[in-house]
Amino acid sequence: MTEIDVRQRILAANEAAAAEVRSRYRDEGTLVINLISSPGSGKTTLLEKTVARLGGRLRLAAIEGDIATERDADRLRATGIPARQILTGGACHLDARQVQGALAEAAFPAHDILLIENVGNLICPTSYDLGEDLKVALLSVAEGDDKPFKYPAIFSRAQVTVITKADLLPHVTFDVAAVRQQVSVLNPQGRLLVTSARSGEGMGEWCGLLEDLLAAKRAARA
Amino acid sequence: MTEIDVRQRILAANEAAAAEVRSRYRDEGTLVINLISSPGSGKTTLLEKTVARLGGRLRLAAIEGDIATERDADRLRATGIPARQILTGGACHLDARQVQGALAEAAFPAHDILLIENVGNLICPTSYDLGEDLKVALLSVAEGDDKPFKYPAIFSRAQVTVITKADLLPHVTFDVAAVRQQVSVLNPQGRLLVTSARSGEGMGEWCGLLEDLLAAKRAARA
Repeated sequence: MTEIDVRQRILAANEAAAAEVRSRYRDEGTLVINLISSPGSGKTTLLEKTVARLGGRLRLAAIEGDIATERDADRLRATGIPARQILTGGACHLDARQVQGALAEAAFPAHDILLIENVGNLICPTSYDLGEDLKVALLSVAEGDDKPFKYPAIFSRAQVTVITKADLLPHVTFDVAAVRQQVSVLNPQGRLLVTSARSGEGMGEWCGLLEDLLAAKRAARA
Repeated sequence: MTEIDVRQRILAANEAAAAEVRSRYRDEGTLVINLISSPGSGKTTLLEKTVARLGGRLRLAAIEGDIATERDADRLRATGIPARQILTGGACHLDARQVQGALAEAAFPAHDILLIENVGNLICPTSYDLGEDLKVALLSVAEGDDKPFKYPAIFSRAQVTVITKADLLPHVTFDVAAVRQQVSVLNPQGRLLVTSARSGEGMGEWCGLLEDLLAAKRAARA
């Protein structure tokens, strides 16, 4: 077996598991999102603020992917939602079999939205379907406005790009229009939101988008 | 051949190439550093400022690793040093064979320090020896102070951790002492520097460290 054979076998096994996750959540009418970004772009903080806004009227659950520490699942549980940590032990992305295992072990109560936070890595998670309805890419303004063209795969595939930490814009060099232009080239159908968990900017639009997508998924099923 | 066999074969080939790079640069008395961080932690900017301080008295050359775009090599060439871009086309890290190929194609004039900027990824580059004298991990204060324990491999192996964008400390939640404590647990011999390319903080210490390491390498050879 060559290196390419091994990689194809791994991806095929992942696709099969992802199809099972997708089928389950189609039946249940649950929206599944897969958050992907660099380390420290604010994935966990975005989820904390999402729970604060939506937790009162929607049932949320979270799967947290990290190489080490239970820290992120602890943060989500502190918001009052059920959360399960997947520790990859060194692996650079989540795969759909890990998600299936976490769902089986966690036995979450029925939920409207499943929030999957991938391992902090702007590259490797892109190739692994987790059975999600949409990939969401995060990009903090501190990371610089050249990132979509430098990491084109994720920004091509993410249906939504969320610019985070907009409260830092006065203190960094970051041209939102340049990011918007790159994303529009890579992904003409993609949505771009500008947010700050700290100031609350854009959080209503983000949460409203999730509610719309959930409603659309349920309408398509009906 | 199993997945593990394939991985071992890849790493063995990499080790052989890394040994050749290391041997060449031992003979030449050139210091080789491998910079590893998340996307947008400020690797290229740190190198630009390093050239500005050291370029007058040391001969520097750079290899830039990216998935796409020649942007970073262009930035380094604009500082006046020779730089070669390696485009991985999707791969999540540099390997030593790519470095050998870039060195052969670039045919840099004799240089005192070779600066290798890895692909923006806090995980995968850690496992691939490039023949460097030291790995340097960068962590921007915008990424949060929990990262060493969440990404322990790189912070265990990097001889130097450089905290970047310290000028943003008034605007973010980041406890330098917490990072220092985590790094000291993971890597008791590791050095930690606090820097800001914008304000210049710590840049003298960083460049002085490179000069000391270069002198030590040459003294050991003599």
